[in-house]
Amino acid sequence: MNTIGTLFKLSIFGESHGNSVGIVIDGVPAGIPITREELEADLSRRKSGAKGTTPRQEADIPRIMSGVFENHTTGAPILILFENTNTRSKDYSFLLETPRPGHADFVAHKKFGGYEDYRGGGHFSGRITLGIVAAGVIAKKIIAPIIVKSTLIEAGGTTDIEKAVEKAIAEQDSIGGIVETIATNMPIGLGEPFFGNIKAVLAHYIYSIPAIKGLEFGSGFAAARMKGTEHNDKFITVSGKTATNYAGGINGGISNGNDLVFKVAVKPTSSIHATQHTMNMKTGQMTDLSVEGRHDTCIALRIPVVVEAMTCLALADLVLQEQKFPRVVKS
Amino acid sequence: MNTIGTLFKLSIFGESHGNSVGIVIDGVPAGIPITREELEADLSRRKSGAKGTTPRQEADIPRIMSGVFENHTTGAPILILFENTNTRSKDYSFLLETPRPGHADFVAHKKFGGYEDYRGGGHFSGRITLGIVAAGVIAKKIIAPIIVKSTLIEAGGTTDIEKAVEKAIAEQDSIGGIVETIATNMPIGLGEPFFGNIKAVLAHYIYSIPAIKGLEFGSGFAAARMKGTEHNDKFITVSGKTATNYAGGINGGISNGNDLVFKVAVKPTSSIHATQHTMNMKTGQMTDLSVEGRHDTCIALRIPVVVEAMTCLALADLVLQEQKFPRVVKS
Amino acid sequence: MNTIGTLFKLSIFGESHGNSVGIVIDGVPAGIPITREELEADLSRRKSGAKGTTPRQEADIPRIMSGVFENHTTGAPILILFENTNTRSKDYSFLLETPRPGHADFVAHKKFGGYEDYRGGGHFSGRITLGIVAAGVIAKKIIAPIIVKSTLIEAGGTTDIEKAVEKAIAEQDSIGGIVETIATNMPIGLGEPFFGNIKAVLAHYIYSIPAIKGLEFGSGFAAARMKGTEHNDKFITVSGKTATNYAGGINGGISNGNDLVFKVAVKPTSSIHATQHTMNMKTGQMTDLSVEGRHDTCIALRIPVVVEAMTCLALADLVLQEQKFPRVVKS
Amino acid sequence: MNTIGTLFKLSIFGESHGNSVGIVIDGVPAGIPITREELEADLSRRKSGAKGTTPRQEADIPRIMSGVFENHTTGAPILILFENTNTRSKDYSFLLETPRPGHADFVAHKKFGGYEDYRGGGHFSGRITLGIVAAGVIAKKIIAPIIVKSTLIEAGGTTDIEKAVEKAIAEQDSIGGIVETIATNMPIGLGEPFFGNIKAVLAHYIYSIPAIKGLEFGSGFAAARMKGTEHNDKFITVSGKTATNYAGGINGGISNGNDLVFKVAVKPTSSIHATQHTMNMKTGQMTDLSVEGRHDTCIALRIPVVVEAMTCLALADLVLQEQKFPRVVKS
Repeated sequence: MNTIGTLFKLSIFGESHGNSVGIVIDGVPAGIPITREELEADLSRRKSGAKGTTPRQEADIPRIMSGVFENHTTGAPILILFENTNTRSKDYSFLLETPRPGHADFVAHKKFGGYEDYRGGGHFSGRITLGIVAAGVIAKKIIAPIIVKSTLIEAGGTTDIEKAVEKAIAEQDSIGGIVETIATNMPIGLGEPFFGNIKAVLAHYIYSIPAIKGLEFGSGFAAARMKGTEHNDKFITVSGKTATNYAGGINGGISNGNDLVFKVAVKPTSSIHATQHTMNMKTGQMTDLSVEGRHDTCIALRIPVVVEAMTCLALADLVLQEQKFPRVVKS
Repeated sequence: MNTIGTLFKLSIFGESHGNSVGIVIDGVPAGIPITREELEADLSRRKSGAKGTTPRQEADIPRIMSGVFENHTTGAPILILFENTNTRSKDYSFLLETPRPGHADFVAHKKFGGYEDYRGGGHFSGRITLGIVAAGVIAKKIIAPIIVKSTLIEAGGTTDIEKAVEKAIAEQDSIGGIVETIATNMPIGLGEPFFGNIKAVLAHYIYSIPAIKGLEFGSGFAAARMKGTEHNDKFITVSGKTATNYAGGINGGISNGNDLVFKVAVKPTSSIHATQHTMNMKTGQMTDLSVEGRHDTCIALRIPVVVEAMTCLALADLVLQEQKFPRVVKS
Repeated sequence: MNTIGTLFKLSIFGESHGNSVGIVIDGVPAGIPITREELEADLSRRKSGAKGTTPRQEADIPRIMSGVFENHTTGAPILILFENTNTRSKDYSFLLETPRPGHADFVAHKKFGGYEDYRGGGHFSGRITLGIVAAGVIAKKIIAPIIVKSTLIEAGGTTDIEKAVEKAIAEQDSIGGIVETIATNMPIGLGEPFFGNIKAVLAHYIYSIPAIKGLEFGSGFAAARMKGTEHNDKFITVSGKTATNYAGGINGGISNGNDLVFKVAVKPTSSIHATQHTMNMKTGQMTDLSVEGRHDTCIALRIPVVVEAMTCLALADLVLQEQKFPRVVKS
Repeated sequence: MNTIGTLFKLSIFGESHGNSVGIVIDGVPAGIPITREELEADLSRRKSGAKGTTPRQEADIPRIMSGVFENHTTGAPILILFENTNTRSKDYSFLLETPRPGHADFVAHKKFGGYEDYRGGGHFSGRITLGIVAAGVIAKKIIAPIIVKSTLIEAGGTTDIEKAVEKAIAEQDSIGGIVETIATNMPIGLGEPFFGNIKAVLAHYIYSIPAIKGLEFGSGFAAARMKGTEHNDKFITVSGKTATNYAGGINGGISNGNDLVFKVAVKPTSSIHATQHTMNMKTGQMTDLSVEGRHDTCIALRIPVVVEAMTCLALADLVLQEQKFPRVVKS
């Protein structure tokens, strides 16, 4: 479903070429200062226009439609609305019949019986992450002093990301990448056993971002090739700091006070200019497809702020849950 | 929290050395045949006793305490209870003061203020996955004809798993491994956008299993180094079969009818015999710790059936949701 | 929280004098025809302007911002937005200091620390039931052939409702009333034991409507004075029809195929012109308050369509849950 | 479904004549002292044996199977289990064919296709409120200093309850009653708008109790016949105390610091000895039924402690939610 959260609840909606995209955020404590300019700062990091991103340019102006009064949250639900303006739907009319390989066109058609809004991917478009980024700005204030930073550390198999993008543009192809996220100033104790543990909750949010193929915490897949004597992080202070951080800041699914560290793999953009083999769902024949339209060469360039926002949204829900009772310490 | 599910709801409980572990399963349709013997078949795959697993042997007898009548589900919640019998709690009394590196001892102590049941990891013990395996047997019947199979494909960095285990035993160390899961006979359309997509939901369940460090679908992390022209799976039939399956059977977070494929990384068992550096939480001094007790050399040996069960539990909830309305197809 | 629903999920937002009110509806099956005109038909039943209702007149134009394409639902979330236009906030500035007796002003101030949007009741205003009525129109299509009808059967203690309203206007006072709801064409089997039973779920939705003070099913409070020999509804057909309907169409919390019947009590509008004793929260002194502004004499006149919509919303969620598995009948 | 709660989660299970009934309680803060004796004190108030209650006597011994260690809650889920011992299932075998009027037999059969455990009402039996009462004992400690007290104030239409019961026994009939609940020491601010308001949440829990037909807060149905000038409770202190309490301690769905007051109507026990008209579901013919077995003359005698427990369970969830963020007060 399009909702998530226990105390900090998100309800996402919208289509790429419909009237709007946006989000309703419920459970935001009253009294948090927030302005449209603050939303726009993170939204600009998600924007297209730079080399390697789609030339489709949306104004992406967030309208705060409820829940904020005199520049502070009121405790009531916050609707942030983005009205779509720069839509060129005629580009996508072919999707009625010929699904693009690697996209959701085919499954959407089968799942929603032909009633789906197929234009530009409709509800499956990466465009609906706009609301995620906006909500993330509010989440960042709830989780303070925790600071989350997501960075593209590799694209097209190399750390020279600019070069990788230029090469892909020259080849009229697309490339993927790897985004690393580090959260500092982490408290001890975030996450609830068993299904509410911090890895499971973060994984749920992070895998809601389109185009994510892999997620690993701390040592990740390398852990499968390590020995226990290497992998166990040795404590070096009584406050729980460890010499290494193979755990990625998590033990037993609970934050241990060390930095939270994880990496995600982003696939190469599915929209490419090359001719591809697909089917015609109407005629039942196989056919070829060459997609025009405006594409990202490397969607991974625009994803770090989305991963960062999702991480903050997940943490905000866990932070609010953790504050739920006066701590009693056994004497 | 210890609950999950929209229509097929799980509520897990128990401690390693307390009275019991188990699970309540709600939302099970009436009329499904089930016997204790069927539960035991999968439970035996999780059992210890084989080379590389802990010598602690529990009878692990599942008692069906409600929701089943005359060997069929009734539609009411099913409680499956495992009473603990073979507990040797004196082994663990040191945990009151000196947390084991790599374990949940430290975070549990901080989160629950010293009131946690620290014996054998308490509620954080892998032992509570017993309920998961039992519930998985019921889930398998709900998702039929889908068949899920999880296999250990690598341990200690090699596919010769027996050899890797023997070496680790000889070195008195522990090793990790990689488990691959393949689900066949998948329907098209499982998963709900946006937060209910099949990757996000599976990730939530899978990352609830202790010791999981990484999860990747289809091409996974390799996708980050591929080009769009390679990565897009070409359709080869109008029913949606694709030539390759880099997508792992998922587009836009919805199952596409091809096999569902994912891999998880399991860390080396944290419990090892070697002396390790840790702290004394009572004195506030750093100290050394050598853990006696009974350990698994390679917990990954016992995890495939748990991953398999978790996958079935996640799919069962999605299958029940997908059947939620008579499909209307646009004419 | 401002969300509800298992498969048919609502997320409500907005303030009386803010930018907007509205609702996001998730879990709507694809392919349901819907137009703005259909929404407006029910919205007009909620409108003010008639005798006994507030002279504040809002256009109440619903904007469908997502989830509908070519006049059919797409399966994606539906945002219905009402932008506020006719707001006269200066009427309410006194609420900063002097809460109105019978209103939420005082508790909102204490709960949200002064950050609440106090204008016209803010998020506590009956105005946010606009979204409920709009969503109800969609719910009615999901629950067909069930038909729900809510009627004001008593106001100011009499069934001559028009007379009661005229008297109250003459006395510059306000009055309450009783709304009866009858759902016909009910299937057998709606409701899930124990906490998902149809009474509990309906009660949750109905008591979310502001101004409701009582709710009784079938015989209701009269049941407390009846004997078992009278109260047990005798079966008269093998399909389950009963001679009487003291049960209100419900046994064991499950619909029994007879008409669903319940009544709610609506309190007299709290906003009145009379001078009332209250406090000044700033000075800490008791004071008198005379509220100007535009009020309903009998809010119960506008509530039937809201009760009707809420009933349909609750039933829609139960209908979708009940269809969750192919029915197996024991042979 | 058989689960409820946002932070304080309940999962209920069991059948009247199956192996057991009980409850899993998740989200209980660590460090709360609890003993079996404390559970038994409230359980004894629910017990049968007194005049007007069924002669079936169960030991009703609560076994705490997890989540409690050294007589304190650990923060992990608590399973409280009651194994059934005194079952006389042969009494109920007729239910396979002839449903009792006023009971859930008919709807259970239709909903679960004949797979339901029909013995003694199975999962629909009032017996599963045992878990509710036990969980209520823990909830009472979470909501302290709030104190909740539920009392039977009327039975069979009179306040002389003993006499009413004797008369009903003499007539071999059953009677209903009215239970009043008063919660004192209420804080201001419990309840979350819109669907999480205190009336809606309490109504959901209270209407989960079998046999409840009506629920009214404060003035309740009488409010429908009052005028606004009468009904608005006048503030008499700046802390929010009011001269009257028609609101029942609630404004805008939020607790206002005055006593929380509500009444529920309990129907006469459906199990009676008289011959009743019903159907034979197997033959499809109408028939007569005379139910032997052991019945309560006035189930309302045993319900106050259940209503009290349910109220505490609902309040516990709201109390934990309300503590979710440091209160910020606007300066």
